[in-house]
Amino acid sequence: MEVVSEVKAHGGTQGVYTHSSDRCNCDMTFSVFVPDAVSDGPLPVVWYLSGLTCTHANVMEKGEYRRLAAELGLIVVCPDTSPRGDGIADEPDNWQLGTGAGFYVDATQSPWAQNYQMYSYVTDELPALIGAEFLTDMNRQAVLGHSMGGHGALTIALKNPDRFKSCSAFAPIVNPMTADWSKGALEAYLGSDQANWRAYDACALIEDGARFPGLLVDQGDADGFLDSGLRPWLLEEVCKASGIDLTLRMQTGYDHSYFFISSFMEDHLRWHAERLIR
Amino acid sequence: MEVVSEVKAHGGTQGVYTHSSDRCNCDMTFSVFVPDAVSDGPLPVVWYLSGLTCTHANVMEKGEYRRLAAELGLIVVCPDTSPRGDGIADEPDNWQLGTGAGFYVDATQSPWAQNYQMYSYVTDELPALIGAEFLTDMNRQAVLGHSMGGHGALTIALKNPDRFKSCSAFAPIVNPMTADWSKGALEAYLGSDQANWRAYDACALIEDGARFPGLLVDQGDADGFLDSGLRPWLLEEVCKASGIDLTLRMQTGYDHSYFFISSFMEDHLRWHAERLIR
Repeated sequence: MEVVSEVKAHGGTQGVYTHSSDRCNCDMTFSVFVPDAVSDGPLPVVWYLSGLTCTHANVMEKGEYRRLAAELGLIVVCPDTSPRGDGIADEPDNWQLGTGAGFYVDATQSPWAQNYQMYSYVTDELPALIGAEFLTDMNRQAVLGHSMGGHGALTIALKNPDRFKSCSAFAPIVNPMTADWSKGALEAYLGSDQANWRAYDACALIEDGARFPGLLVDQGDADGFLDSGLRPWLLEEVCKASGIDLTLRMQTGYDHSYFFISSFMEDHLRWHAERLIR
Repeated sequence: MEVVSEVKAHGGTQGVYTHSSDRCNCDMTFSVFVPDAVSDGPLPVVWYLSGLTCTHANVMEKGEYRRLAAELGLIVVCPDTSPRGDGIADEPDNWQLGTGAGFYVDATQSPWAQNYQMYSYVTDELPALIGAEFLTDMNRQAVLGHSMGGHGALTIALKNPDRFKSCSAFAPIVNPMTADWSKGALEAYLGSDQANWRAYDACALIEDGARFPGLLVDQGDADGFLDSGLRPWLLEEVCKASGIDLTLRMQTGYDHSYFFISSFMEDHLRWHAERLIR
């Protein structure tokens, strides 16, 4: 792991790091915020997964998570959203596939399978590195994310309920199998047999038996992607049918941007802290 | 005035606007955050002046001011740092002169005088527009800024002590007449007679008799520009000699970035609110 930058912020250190990823077959960049309180011992880890077109940097600059993370004693890790670089498969004119659009799946189809292993990267390889390089308590992990990253957070929590103490999402893609902006990527990465997509779809996972103790979802009602891509009512339906305790909050007037994310970041970090720090 | 964007954030509206500026002879862009509390009546105005290379957008994205501004009931206006556009004088390879480097002066020298009238723009033209277009209480104004914008905040407050209830700065250029990164701009904008520079230099203004009731300055001790460009001890000396109540806080480990600004934004907005809302 190489240090790209480490800057003091809000009573902690905001770092950016790169490493050579075995899973993604390329160098990957990520950010980690470590509160100064880490000097008193290991801290829980909150994973923040970003949305389409983003890198680690967007939420680091605009997410407004550091003040609360420092106050609550939470290490916040923000991975990139895909492999990227020379020689990595991509469709440069398509923001919904390839670079910036990893969808937190392990691709099985050529040419994507060579590098697009974001599920394994985010759930195995990067956690091992974080646990080795930072003073973390990996028995206390939480996951949240936005849009495509909200999909990532929900599916990763549902597939690993013993690992994560809590899960939340901002405007998540709850049913990517049927949403316009994600169907194409799932087909490209996983092939045309939709049975293989269900392991990466929050609604399908719940229908197929996955469970998680409680979920917090915030959704702006002025979000331009609400009806075509997000549709949180689909998650509400399957949670109700399966007994999952979903707190879905429709936020009047809010859109899909980091202005929305940063407005409710405090609520989400407090939600996670209540479940991580007991 | 034209609306570029208006987005809901933190219980308020973050807007970006353009207008045709008479003083700068070009279209100018600025941002305004208006808390929802404005529905109960006019709110005080906080002016945030940005540093070299910035536009209105940097602090809007990275400054983390909205939560507190909404809570405290403060309208926050963030102007651009210079005129910009086709036909505007510039030295594209010099980040310390021209576009992004207006230094909040009224230029007197060719070719700069044609557009670079940022002092009049920020103190006269834009306040008139803000007062007309937003529900503001212009009897309650505060000014703060960062680096070049900290210089702007200090000099504008010192020259207009009756207008501003409070003033603060992050890592301000306190003595631009003698700092490497500002001498060239002052000479280009104002000519070689340094007597004319004194009206745009906080230390010189205080030496020449300007006063302000109290100032808050935060400065990171890991700021790479500390010794060559910022030197807050020079402000400390003239404030001590003239009886100005300066609160200068050296912040251990902090640099010159928005990570530093955002870390102490809350303290600054509370400082202003205490003086604006009585």
